[in-house]
Amino acid sequence: MLYFYSTRFFANVQPLFRGFYLADRCHLTERSTVMTVCGITAEYNPFHTGHLHHIAETRRSLGENAVIVCVMSGNFVQRGDFAVLDKYTRAEMAVRCGADLVVELPLAAALSSAEGFAKGAVQTLHALGCGTVSFGAETADTNLLLQAAELLNSLPMKGESGSPHLSYAARRQEELSKVNKQAAVLLDNPNNTLAVEYCRFLLPLEMRPLAVRRQGAAHDACAPHSGFASASLLRAHLRDGDFAFCAPFLPPAARAVWKKAADCGEAPVALPEDTLLALLRTALYQGKLHTGSADGFDERLRKAVYTAHSFSDAVEKARTRRFPAARVRRALLRAVLGVEADAPVSPAYLRVLALGVRGRAALRQAALPVIVKPATEKRLPANLQAALCRDAFADDLFALALPDPERRIGGGHFRKTPFCLR
Amino acid sequence: MLYFYSTRFFANVQPLFRGFYLADRCHLTERSTVMTVCGITAEYNPFHTGHLHHIAETRRSLGENAVIVCVMSGNFVQRGDFAVLDKYTRAEMAVRCGADLVVELPLAAALSSAEGFAKGAVQTLHALGCGTVSFGAETADTNLLLQAAELLNSLPMKGESGSPHLSYAARRQEELSKVNKQAAVLLDNPNNTLAVEYCRFLLPLEMRPLAVRRQGAAHDACAPHSGFASASLLRAHLRDGDFAFCAPFLPPAARAVWKKAADCGEAPVALPEDTLLALLRTALYQGKLHTGSADGFDERLRKAVYTAHSFSDAVEKARTRRFPAARVRRALLRAVLGVEADAPVSPAYLRVLALGVRGRAALRQAALPVIVKPATEKRLPANLQAALCRDAFADDLFALALPDPERRIGGGHFRKTPFCLR
Repeated sequence: MLYFYSTRFFANVQPLFRGFYLADRCHLTERSTVMTVCGITAEYNPFHTGHLHHIAETRRSLGENAVIVCVMSGNFVQRGDFAVLDKYTRAEMAVRCGADLVVELPLAAALSSAEGFAKGAVQTLHALGCGTVSFGAETADTNLLLQAAELLNSLPMKGESGSPHLSYAARRQEELSKVNKQAAVLLDNPNNTLAVEYCRFLLPLEMRPLAVRRQGAAHDACAPHSGFASASLLRAHLRDGDFAFCAPFLPPAARAVWKKAADCGEAPVALPEDTLLALLRTALYQGKLHTGSADGFDERLRKAVYTAHSFSDAVEKARTRRFPAARVRRALLRAVLGVEADAPVSPAYLRVLALGVRGRAALRQAALPVIVKPATEKRLPANLQAALCRDAFADDLFALALPDPERRIGGGHFRKTPFCLR
Repeated sequence: MLYFYSTRFFANVQPLFRGFYLADRCHLTERSTVMTVCGITAEYNPFHTGHLHHIAETRRSLGENAVIVCVMSGNFVQRGDFAVLDKYTRAEMAVRCGADLVVELPLAAALSSAEGFAKGAVQTLHALGCGTVSFGAETADTNLLLQAAELLNSLPMKGESGSPHLSYAARRQEELSKVNKQAAVLLDNPNNTLAVEYCRFLLPLEMRPLAVRRQGAAHDACAPHSGFASASLLRAHLRDGDFAFCAPFLPPAARAVWKKAADCGEAPVALPEDTLLALLRTALYQGKLHTGSADGFDERLRKAVYTAHSFSDAVEKARTRRFPAARVRRALLRAVLGVEADAPVSPAYLRVLALGVRGRAALRQAALPVIVKPATEKRLPANLQAALCRDAFADDLFALALPDPERRIGGGHFRKTPFCLR
């Protein structure tokens, strides 16, 4: 079913109570029911015990009846990689482990910097009626996070300001430290950085942050810690075929979903080096390898692709301190997927990947077109068709990296349907 | 060095003596020397004892001083495949085994039907001053071949005439049999078919055919025969790493060239299934999968690529009696390489791949721009730059299929230079 609401539907619904996480979002009219809807931004690549802990803590803060709505990267993730498992299966893991609804983050947002990622995610959650956004961070001091966010929003950062050899994020941190050292120190940590970005976009929408202190392994940590392992460590072991290592760090329900996908040749998915280099070289010759960046980034990318013998080699050749590997990887994937430099990170529709009973109720409040059955895409307005077609292409390209060759056929996008927990 | 001559330079030089192969081409003015220049159309994929026999027989017919000039498919061959070895190395094999000059067949001609292939080849040889074209055929009766060619040239074949379930070639044969059964029977054999096509394009240029009766293994034969093996059998064994099987069927000089290429990780090259499917799926979404054919061929191709799980699977899904596998393979490769439906098969420049002393002399008579050093490409007229750029892209895509990953870098096109036998 498809609902069309004006985005204005939710405007001015929630007053701004910084630092408070209590359920007070109950002023919706008509179809709405009295419910606390809390959003989570995630990649669940794969869903692990840390994510389970995060959902449990969020529910503990907001009450058992809170509706947990997740916005999740699709088949391509923010570090510029293919997800280890397709988006519908990762969403199923989340719903089996306590989430009520998982919708897809727009592709352009998933392949953006922390800023674009957070903007797209927060706006998607806003369109789903979330009053609160819950995220993991090294600090649980939401006031400090909001303070840093407000300062960043007011920073007059120009593209070329600050030390020229540093990345944009580092230059921004440098600027921030001039006005508030404590806030700038926050940004030393990748999870805090993302948390501050969420806060930046929550503020104008009058949504509230709920910071849950992260447990165990640090982001990208290469060893497990007190029952938790980082997603990157788990991906490495899953891609090496070492499921035994990962099992203790996957909730039982997620473990079962993984096993089923692996058994039928749909997991693990790894970035297809050779194929991507061929696609990049084609994009280079077609003049499609450009990001619109004026700082020499495009020229570096093109030279790297021309002289590289693999995708990773291209990344190594293009990266510098100023252009971090993740930015290079995302730019290359965007070129391959045809995501233009100016593609909006804000959602124009909500693609449902998995849902439970409460998630279904939450969808009734959606302020954007909802896609549940992919076949209904064709009925969406003409101005959305280009983005929908790109989604289908992205999924068909992802399918080419599935372990079982027989599963590499196209059109999966129109065959898959959201997992539904009853 | 680069020479520019008008194509008119060679017009009306040779009177038409059908069925005669004697050297009488000695009326060139100015820079020309008295020499018999004979052309051979080939793929040399790889160069084997049958090819050696063909060159020897040609020289025996025309005299030891005849200059043997070959026009050879580049990295992509007429059956719609990646060559087993790059074009410069295959050309080196030929020159070490008796050819005097090897130039590249235009990419669009190499990826054409027998008709386009023959037209591009004959016109290239004409631009090189060849008075005779020598080819292998099941018959040595050139008068019959020329007769069939003349009849075909006068056939009022329309795209849609004849039995609709048959391929274009089969329908043409059907038409021909109505006027001359004996000539039509010739076309039962693939080498004769190609021979007749050569004759069709030799006629208006007043060049003469020299048919050399093929020895040993038939085209695509799956077992060797009296010291000869088919190129397709040799490719299969080379790609399987079974060099020992092939050695007796490769002339010693060609064998040494192969060994050197294989030792440094440049051979054998096989069509990269996964990469090609990714490129095809991208072409499909970019709307670039079309041949301009009005008989439902395009729709079949698109559907096949959409539902295929590999390149071969796409070929199997698209092929019918009417659309033979080779036509499908060529159409798919053309889409990947950006060779448009209306790309001319006629040469606009002559790219030298290998040459000996006599070949160098023959080049002085060339009626088109000659490319020896790839760097000189940039000095060629602007209207040729698109085709030159496509050549570079084709070579860079071919490089991605080299066995040694370190050799898959781009720009090889501008580093390779013709092999020069002194």
